[in-house]
Amino acid sequence: MRVNNKPILTTQHYTADPADTAFVFIEFQNEFTSPGGKLYDAVKDTIAKYGTIENAQKVMNGARDAGCTIIHVPIAFESGHREINGEYGILANVKAGEAFTASTWNADFCDEMKPQESDLVVKGKTGLCGFHSTNLDFMLRQNSIKNVVLSGFLTNCCVESTMRTAYENGYKVYTLMDCCAGTSVAGQEAAFEHTFGMFSIPTSSGEIMDSIKIPVV
Amino acid sequence: MRVNNKPILTTQHYTADPADTAFVFIEFQNEFTSPGGKLYDAVKDTIAKYGTIENAQKVMNGARDAGCTIIHVPIAFESGHREINGEYGILANVKAGEAFTASTWNADFCDEMKPQESDLVVKGKTGLCGFHSTNLDFMLRQNSIKNVVLSGFLTNCCVESTMRTAYENGYKVYTLMDCCAGTSVAGQEAAFEHTFGMFSIPTSSGEIMDSIKIPVV
Amino acid sequence: MRVNNKPILTTQHYTADPADTAFVFIEFQNEFTSPGGKLYDAVKDTIAKYGTIENAQKVMNGARDAGCTIIHVPIAFESGHREINGEYGILANVKAGEAFTASTWNADFCDEMKPQESDLVVKGKTGLCGFHSTNLDFMLRQNSIKNVVLSGFLTNCCVESTMRTAYENGYKVYTLMDCCAGTSVAGQEAAFEHTFGMFSIPTSSGEIMDSIKIPVV
Amino acid sequence: MRVNNKPILTTQHYTADPADTAFVFIEFQNEFTSPGGKLYDAVKDTIAKYGTIENAQKVMNGARDAGCTIIHVPIAFESGHREINGEYGILANVKAGEAFTASTWNADFCDEMKPQESDLVVKGKTGLCGFHSTNLDFMLRQNSIKNVVLSGFLTNCCVESTMRTAYENGYKVYTLMDCCAGTSVAGQEAAFEHTFGMFSIPTSSGEIMDSIKIPVV
Repeated sequence: MRVNNKPILTTQHYTADPADTAFVFIEFQNEFTSPGGKLYDAVKDTIAKYGTIENAQKVMNGARDAGCTIIHVPIAFESGHREINGEYGILANVKAGEAFTASTWNADFCDEMKPQESDLVVKGKTGLCGFHSTNLDFMLRQNSIKNVVLSGFLTNCCVESTMRTAYENGYKVYTLMDCCAGTSVAGQEAAFEHTFGMFSIPTSSGEIMDSIKIPVV
Repeated sequence: MRVNNKPILTTQHYTADPADTAFVFIEFQNEFTSPGGKLYDAVKDTIAKYGTIENAQKVMNGARDAGCTIIHVPIAFESGHREINGEYGILANVKAGEAFTASTWNADFCDEMKPQESDLVVKGKTGLCGFHSTNLDFMLRQNSIKNVVLSGFLTNCCVESTMRTAYENGYKVYTLMDCCAGTSVAGQEAAFEHTFGMFSIPTSSGEIMDSIKIPVV
Repeated sequence: MRVNNKPILTTQHYTADPADTAFVFIEFQNEFTSPGGKLYDAVKDTIAKYGTIENAQKVMNGARDAGCTIIHVPIAFESGHREINGEYGILANVKAGEAFTASTWNADFCDEMKPQESDLVVKGKTGLCGFHSTNLDFMLRQNSIKNVVLSGFLTNCCVESTMRTAYENGYKVYTLMDCCAGTSVAGQEAAFEHTFGMFSIPTSSGEIMDSIKIPVV
Repeated sequence: MRVNNKPILTTQHYTADPADTAFVFIEFQNEFTSPGGKLYDAVKDTIAKYGTIENAQKVMNGARDAGCTIIHVPIAFESGHREINGEYGILANVKAGEAFTASTWNADFCDEMKPQESDLVVKGKTGLCGFHSTNLDFMLRQNSIKNVVLSGFLTNCCVESTMRTAYENGYKVYTLMDCCAGTSVAGQEAAFEHTFGMFSIPTSSGEIMDSIKIPVV
């Protein structure tokens, strides 16, 4: 039935054409991913347990090779963090800790997850949801994307907010538990157990990689 | 310092003027709240454990008397549920179960939580987040609201999505655990333990009621 | 190339499948359209010059017959107009004039443009843009709509704001000059001359009707 | 009545505190403002007629000195313009002309309007409306801004879309005709005559400058 020889994405739930599928990688930045990052100690246990970085890298490269759109969603604040008031909640911690300051090593993508020239990099993220203060939805629409595969940091904060809005925006949303990390294994597992299935199809790096195959035409 | 004798809202964290404070009640509709509602069985245990309905009613009446803005956020679908495609996720269940059909008893507010003439009723909610497909943000801004106090159904679905967006939209957000209910006590407790503190000041009906006092001027 | 015998939409610019095409009719309500409406006198000259009502009715019926999605976007305010503060700008006039009060004849759809059971009716519009405070975008995405054909009132107010956001949201937008009306012929013509071409493909009821044909399969 | 000695903003319509007032400068980038810019020829006549650049510079410096928040809203695309599909409308021209390519002189702010360290610079603008794909609303909310004073390019495109959304978002919006420019004097005058008064208080650089005074305390 397919008229070209591009690989397709198939899970037990769905078959998608790479032409309308985007893999969205949220905040694979040194502040989270690398020893020396201010939040590394908070997330290193879930990274270690799930193999977050290696799995995400494998998925990113495989999806790019298959012709999917690769999108990176970094968070960054200008020195002084004047974009946020720091009054309460998680953004207060971000401001107090001067985390993710633009143009520093801390805000850089980690070595394993550097954008390639064919990737898109979202701009404007100064909140939690990957859509709210950014051009993510705009670029997804301009590029006729229907399927969004999510991974990154923090599982129950930015990844979850992005998942919830992606579902609300009408995309077919997949979430990759073993490509995410949070501040506790219990929090990550609670998120996948209680909420991720309401707004996405939770799956794994292995299942997604298996689904990217060259179809018979 | 205050120049009028209106009551104020004070918690350990904050003092707010009722003039810019809204209490937002999410989906206190028979489908959830009342025996015979299609989702009542799913939530009756958490309702019973927390006293969700009585607490919410007490808070609603007290906040209204104190001069706060009371906002109701119902969800409803026209017969046929053509507003949603029912492809996957929680909205697929809503469509398959024909839940919250407009102009039926199921979609009506429960007796304890009927809107009064001075209240505002949000329109358009056909998704999960109370902001996404509605005039909630529009009315909050037109009415110069800064503080948003959230309660309702489901704790980790519509209430949580609304909380996340309210935080992103710059409101000071309070969440009332004992005025919420979900499909499991474990899910509700996981939500408050792992995520609500990132996007709101979790508090309770008692603390909020204590905070609504006539100030010395 | 087409695999079914549904009619298609073709203009000099584009061919669209009715399955992903919505005709969006903005505020065909008595307040604007009918003698006795508070704003009828303001728009009757442009209605008369362009034949707005007859043309829109013809397009609505033709598009519905062709299998396109028909969407009505009414504006309405509860008695007291507490949804808006009336501080300045056009909403101040709406509030001062108590226009479009819900559940009155004034807010009703005019006889020529009553919704049919298969149509969708947008909820929540209490501002100008058809998207901003409503479930329009939500329903368009849930229904996999790609092409949006706009008409209604006022040309350079609600229709134009809706067009601008529709373009920003990535839809293919068409505007039907002879199915719109505004408070002055000069304003309507200035809008089409200077701005509509930036955000839409301006066309006419005749061209759209001609484009809805049964294709050879 | 005022408790500090900060200057205030007063026009015939309004008095605002600089603490909650932002001046938003849209696309004062070489592509528009400077000989050699790809769009300079299209706008140079309106720039010359209104004195757009000098007026905007004067207002920017005066507003900054008065303690208002200064916000710059540039547009920029990565090489290849993959953020946009270029299918139709004004973004098709932007893509075809490779306008506003990031990290080139063309996308730089012009000499007269360089951001100072205390200013905020919006990120993500790859569409027309200054809010749609950016962190503008997010930063305005985080900084408790109520009043938004708009100027820049193009009068009836990005400035007008930004004005429309700012109004919808509940800000008190001012527009400065003599700090804007478009592709024709007729288009600029039509915009101010027919639409700007619906969504803003149109005023001028002179009136705004007069309104920024040190108040008697």
